[in-house]
Parts: sequence; structure tokens; C-alpha cells
Amino acid sequence: MEKKGISKAVLKRLPCYLNYLRGIPDTASPYISATSLANALGMGEVQVRKDLASVSNGGRPKVGYERERLILDIERFLGYDNTNHAVLVGAGKLGLALLGYGGFASYGLDILAAFDIKPSVDRAESGQPVLPMDQLKTFCRRHKICMGILTVPANQAQQACERLIESGIRAIWNFAPVHLEVPDHILVQNENMATSLAVLSMHLQAQMKDEG
Amino acid sequence: MEKKGISKAVLKRLPCYLNYLRGIPDTASPYISATSLANALGMGEVQVRKDLASVSNGGRPKVGYERERLILDIERFLGYDNTNHAVLVGAGKLGLALLGYGGFASYGLDILAAFDIKPSVDRAESGQPVLPMDQLKTFCRRHKICMGILTVPANQAQQACERLIESGIRAIWNFAPVHLEVPDHILVQNENMATSLAVLSMHLQAQMKDEG
Repeated sequence: MEKKGISKAVLKRLPCYLNYLRGIPDTASPYISATSLANALGMGEVQVRKDLASVSNGGRPKVGYERERLILDIERFLGYDNTNHAVLVGAGKLGLALLGYGGFASYGLDILAAFDIKPSVDRAESGQPVLPMDQLKTFCRRHKICMGILTVPANQAQQACERLIESGIRAIWNFAPVHLEVPDHILVQNENMATSLAVLSMHLQAQMKDEG
Repeated sequence: MEKKGISKAVLKRLPCYLNYLRGIPDTASPYISATSLANALGMGEVQVRKDLASVSNGGRPKVGYERERLILDIERFLGYDNTNHAVLVGAGKLGLALLGYGGFASYGLDILAAFDIKPSVDRAESGQPVLPMDQLKTFCRRHKICMGILTVPANQAQQACERLIESGIRAIWNFAPVHLEVPDHILVQNENMATSLAVLSMHLQAQMKDEG
């Protein structure tokens, strides 16, 4: 399967398919067609058919896909089958919350430790150590960590980002609402909650104006 | 100021500007130019100038913007000056984490209560009540709540979404990795962490492949 050139829209739909497929009880038919998947999710049949064909070659006319195989194909495509070890920088409320959130495991993410300038606890409730920043580099190099999660305040984000890159991190999941300057080979994925809130808030304001 | 037709790209940049502006110490000059803002954030000057002009008419040639007024203009534009009261449905780890995260207040979001099918606690650490689902409708109507935050597992999301809509909610911030079916007047903003993880994971896989 060719991964280059896959659109972000497809990437957004694949986890939806995966979730639905994982939720089908074992007692159901071991096969599923693009049509029934499309109907169940209220999505266009042509689109679903095309998406599935781009990640799995297990589809058969009239029969559909073998469910278990399709799940594996999507997981492999999304990289959920290789566990990604990560560190988290910024053990404030959001950071500790993400650390304690068990849901990432099913996406292949394992957060091994958190780091903070001034750790207020030495272990998260979920068991991972919370270490001082000066141990970041050694820890990342020893554990060959490539992914960093950034949950520091906006004004500390650039500096923390640079510490992560010095430590060998190549992909950064950024929860700080700020633009990060990074070299070309580093990927930053922004989780911009501030933008989401602005979109929601604007929708509500526009509705109130219409009403009145 | 005209809000219609503003692009999502601009919406994403505005919180960055806001954060930077909020972080400037009181002792600095009360004025800031689009140029110095662009330089500080490593962004294009033309773009920053255009963005600021679309939300504030306080810019003056050679002088720039009065900092405090620009902050207020951006906040007003983003709707951060009207507090949005919200409820949260799904008081699991992620839900309780968001409830406890103090950072939303500066974006005008105030989560009044959480709801769950089986509340395991009756109050979050941060003080908000955690109530059973059958009190959702009464609570939302009594407090005139328009925004709902959805942090239930994927297979419960559609049902919970319908309960929110019945309760008068018009904007839904969806953290469940699943597509929600809603009527036209309801806005759903998806916070798709699964997609983000897939993007990061693919980047790392591609790099490993390149390195052999």
C-alpha cells in the first residue's frame, strides 16, 4: 500500500472506521462491505469504498472485507501497530491529565515519563515518573524516544520544544496555543483547543444575533 | 468588523497573537506594530498585517496598535469576552481531566457540571458537580446552556450527542473519535486526537524507512 499522498481528510475518516469496526460484536458476521460501513456511519458509499481500497487489498466483490483483517490493515496503515514511546513536557493539569488518560494505548501511544521545570509530584497517579527537565536528554536518548508531547504554557513552549529536539525527538504533539519554530525534519502536530473554542463560540454568537 | 467569511487559517493564528500579546510585560511600550509581532512569531509580515486589520481598526501608520486595545479587539472577535457556559458529558479520565484544566477560563469557557451514566464521584476535584445523565436536560434548560463537551467512549457518542441536543445544546465540542449525525443548526467541532496521533506516527515511520 502506498502511503504517500494520502489526504488528511482520509486520515481523519480512518479512525472513525476503525472505531466502528472494533465495536462490532464478535457474534456478528465476519465480513463487512463498504456499503454497510457507509450506511452505519452516515457517510458516502463511494468515499468509504475508495478509502478502504487505499488501505487494504482484502475487499472482495459481493462479500466485502474480512472484518478482522480490515481492522489490522487500518491499524497498520495508521501506525497503531508499532507502539510509539513518548515523553511529555509540562506536568501541569493538562499534562497530568493526558498522562492519566488510558485511551491512547489503543492508538499505539505509550507515554513513558513526564518532565517539568519544577515537578510538584514525583510520580503521576497513572504510575509514570515526573522528572526534572535536566534529565530529559539522558532519558530520551537512553529509551530512544522519538515523540514528545508539549503541554507547557505558551510562553515556555518554544524553549521546551528546543530541549525536545536536542534530546532527539522528531515528532512533537503541541498542546500549547503557539506557533513553534522547528527545523525541516521535525514534524509539529498542533492540537489547537483555542481555535476550536473560538469556532464554537462564534457559532453561538452568530445564532444569538440571528435570533435577536 | 465583519466576521462572516473569515478563514479557519486566520482563526488559528489569532490565538497565537493573543497569547504573545498577553505575555508582553506591562513595562514594555504600550504600542506594537504588525512588523514586530510578525518578527517575534516568525510569521509573514503581510499576513500578520492583514489579520490584524481584519479584527481591529485601531492600527495607526508608523505607530502600530495600542497593545491593550488590540488584545480586547482580538478577544471580542474570538468571543472570549462573553463567557460560554458549558456542560461536559462523560466523566471518565479525559472528561475529569478537562474539567480540572484551569486553562479554559482565559478563553471564556466555564464548565458548570459534568454528567455520566454512572458517576463514580459526585464532585470533580475542581469543584463542579458530577451528575447522573437523567438530570442533564433540566440542568441545561435551567442554566440556559448552549455548549456541550463530549468525552464519552466512541460507541456512546451518538446517543449522548442526541441527549445534548434534546437539552437545548447548539454547539458540541466532540472528543470522541467518531462522526456525529446532527441537524443543520448544530455545530460540531471535532477534536480528533486519533488523527493527530496517526499523522505523528506516520512521520516517524517514514523517517525510519528513509534511514534504512
